[in-house]
Amino acid sequence: MQNAASHNWHIRVGDVSVELAQEKIVGARHGVSATAFVFDVKNEEQRAKEISESDIVISMLPPFLHPPVAKDCLRFKKHLVTASYVNEEMQAMDKEVREAGILFLNEIGLDPGLDHLSAMKILDEIKGEGGKMLGFESFTGGLVAPENDNNPWNYKFTWNPRNVVLAGQGGAVKFVQEGQYKYIPYQKVFRRTEIIEIEGYGRFEGYANRDSLKYRSVYGLENIPTIYRGTLRRVGFCRAWDVFVQLGATDDSYIMEGSETMTHRQFINSFLAYNLHDSVEIKLMHYLHIDQDSELMEKLKWLGIFDNTIIGLKNATPAQILQHILEKKWSLDEGDKDMIVMWHKFDYELNGKKQHRESSLVVIGDDENRTAMAKTVGLPLGIATRLILEGKVNLTGVVIPIHKQIYEPVLEELKQYGINFKEKTSH
Amino acid sequence: MQNAASHNWHIRVGDVSVELAQEKIVGARHGVSATAFVFDVKNEEQRAKEISESDIVISMLPPFLHPPVAKDCLRFKKHLVTASYVNEEMQAMDKEVREAGILFLNEIGLDPGLDHLSAMKILDEIKGEGGKMLGFESFTGGLVAPENDNNPWNYKFTWNPRNVVLAGQGGAVKFVQEGQYKYIPYQKVFRRTEIIEIEGYGRFEGYANRDSLKYRSVYGLENIPTIYRGTLRRVGFCRAWDVFVQLGATDDSYIMEGSETMTHRQFINSFLAYNLHDSVEIKLMHYLHIDQDSELMEKLKWLGIFDNTIIGLKNATPAQILQHILEKKWSLDEGDKDMIVMWHKFDYELNGKKQHRESSLVVIGDDENRTAMAKTVGLPLGIATRLILEGKVNLTGVVIPIHKQIYEPVLEELKQYGINFKEKTSH
Repeated sequence: MQNAASHNWHIRVGDVSVELAQEKIVGARHGVSATAFVFDVKNEEQRAKEISESDIVISMLPPFLHPPVAKDCLRFKKHLVTASYVNEEMQAMDKEVREAGILFLNEIGLDPGLDHLSAMKILDEIKGEGGKMLGFESFTGGLVAPENDNNPWNYKFTWNPRNVVLAGQGGAVKFVQEGQYKYIPYQKVFRRTEIIEIEGYGRFEGYANRDSLKYRSVYGLENIPTIYRGTLRRVGFCRAWDVFVQLGATDDSYIMEGSETMTHRQFINSFLAYNLHDSVEIKLMHYLHIDQDSELMEKLKWLGIFDNTIIGLKNATPAQILQHILEKKWSLDEGDKDMIVMWHKFDYELNGKKQHRESSLVVIGDDENRTAMAKTVGLPLGIATRLILEGKVNLTGVVIPIHKQIYEPVLEELKQYGINFKEKTSH
Repeated sequence: MQNAASHNWHIRVGDVSVELAQEKIVGARHGVSATAFVFDVKNEEQRAKEISESDIVISMLPPFLHPPVAKDCLRFKKHLVTASYVNEEMQAMDKEVREAGILFLNEIGLDPGLDHLSAMKILDEIKGEGGKMLGFESFTGGLVAPENDNNPWNYKFTWNPRNVVLAGQGGAVKFVQEGQYKYIPYQKVFRRTEIIEIEGYGRFEGYANRDSLKYRSVYGLENIPTIYRGTLRRVGFCRAWDVFVQLGATDDSYIMEGSETMTHRQFINSFLAYNLHDSVEIKLMHYLHIDQDSELMEKLKWLGIFDNTIIGLKNATPAQILQHILEKKWSLDEGDKDMIVMWHKFDYELNGKKQHRESSLVVIGDDENRTAMAKTVGLPLGIATRLILEGKVNLTGVVIPIHKQIYEPVLEELKQYGINFKEKTSH
């Protein structure tokens, strides 16, 4: 937005209400010309009008609402930028978009986005040196900053809580290690973690993302023997989270009877065997082999899952109830800062020798509103949009930011905002 | 079929090939008039012709193929009998079927079927005495007969192996115990078993079926505090089966890379972490906390899952591969007899006193072709069909066999075939 004044650009921000749209422009600098307006993506007439009058369209809509916007962008030959994964519907438009001479740039947020930029930079460097990739691992996590890390889970919600509760569901994890295909079912994802240390920030643990294999073709690593992508948490989080997985408390496929009048304690008890004599705590510890004096038990108690607090949600699924309980404890407090951590590992062979590189990034937010998450999603997207408007991107079609002409200037400019990858090579 | 001669009935058996149809009538007694013919359920003309010329139609088709048959039965006002669960599509036809004055009798096999007949008999008796039901538990299992039980799993496939591999998937188990709703996720179903003893046949273990709650309305037990339905195996089976669940080897949702050239051993290794030094056996024992000298490890080894045998299945899912490996070991040998076990428990209050009844059934097959499974599915269905033809069933609409006019004569006649429930009451 700070470039809009010098370029004499006008920004139009549409949202479901004018108040919501206005919130997004109140931070605009003096001299920036911006209008907030009510926008209904389902209103064909308004959609066509707004898109036809733009030079470029940024869609921050939920992914399932991209298609009508994308179709109008194609119709009026306008560039489109999104931070969402390219789905089949988007990919299918590639030929027409190329023929129209326009660019639909997707996956230019944090993850996906910054991960592509920073990984491709080093992958291209290694390729340029004549190196042969042997292994690529990549982890990203949205966490709470060390200075506000004051709970036993070392975690607070800094992004969509629903996605955190449902993480790992919907299909087995697939990756390849030393040429061997490996599969992890949901019920084991949080017990097959890897420990990662980032200088100055200590130890993290990573659990596997579902989709590692597809990155082979995305990154041009078709024959790489090892590829693994994951999500970072502080050490100890995953083992404790696994308690909810094992109980079945993350299930989003059915409505629980009596969810409205149920207490936290009754919610947990629903997943435990009936027993007239033992407490919910005793039953849980016995069922999942948890020691009474363990940190894990402290984590669970701290969440209030054994409390007699009424849930008060009508016709809710286990996942919805769990999210509700967690939101009471895992929300950012006033002044709390979040933290984005990204870490890549590159193993390769160069001149017959094994080489190893790491690239890591830590970004701390300003406060609970100007989060590191918002910065790391919004800045790559904003910078890339400006580059397109300035005519500096020479690409057409449905594209993700794996090209040097995007990653090089975006990564360079991000340094001004403190988004700076640390690289380390060892031989 | 043995009633066809005395009643001067003619039986027409249709199947996808005339050979398959003929197999089903070769056992017909002297004097029985039966015709085998090629039948294609998707051929509208043939379907209409065959159904319009019948007095009653028995559909043993897979459930998803019932609807076209049911629609023609309605069109030509013919009774229909199936051993399948009533699905929504079938249930939706109830009003029209009743208005047509015909009967669509479903769920009249073993499970569903014999379970309804035997449970409703006792539930009606208890109701008739003025008893108030407190708890109902019901378990059924298809196993191998004790005389042919010669493997460490005490199990052989006696029915659709695919259903055995996928058992418990597709949604959490739901039941109610002492008025408390309880839920068990797939990853815990085989560790939350109950031990059941049947006089003369020893101990069994039962794991929970997914659908206990719906039986409250089916059996008129809306306010019963405890209801639980399950499947029987020999003790120790479930804990060992759980190894495959935990590995993710029962997953049917994705194709494994290289399934055709993979060995049994590589299949198991796909679910274990990469480790250059440890054997597949060591990794598995460590991962799932299995003792080296345990019976469980003997069960796994006996299945040949660690062998270097090539699987040879193209584009197969884990569940398909596992089924393939199991079928080599769990098939009935020549002369092997199967065994059906059914067990119901009724807890109720009568005149202020707690009462307890059990009803159990064990049926042993004749050999690997004339199985107890075939008898217990086919005989209730056959007897009920005869009763309808004889005009002894006074019901219309989409019905399941919970009515005395069905269960009483069917259970009585089944005794002639050695299908005889043992009942036991304790006070």
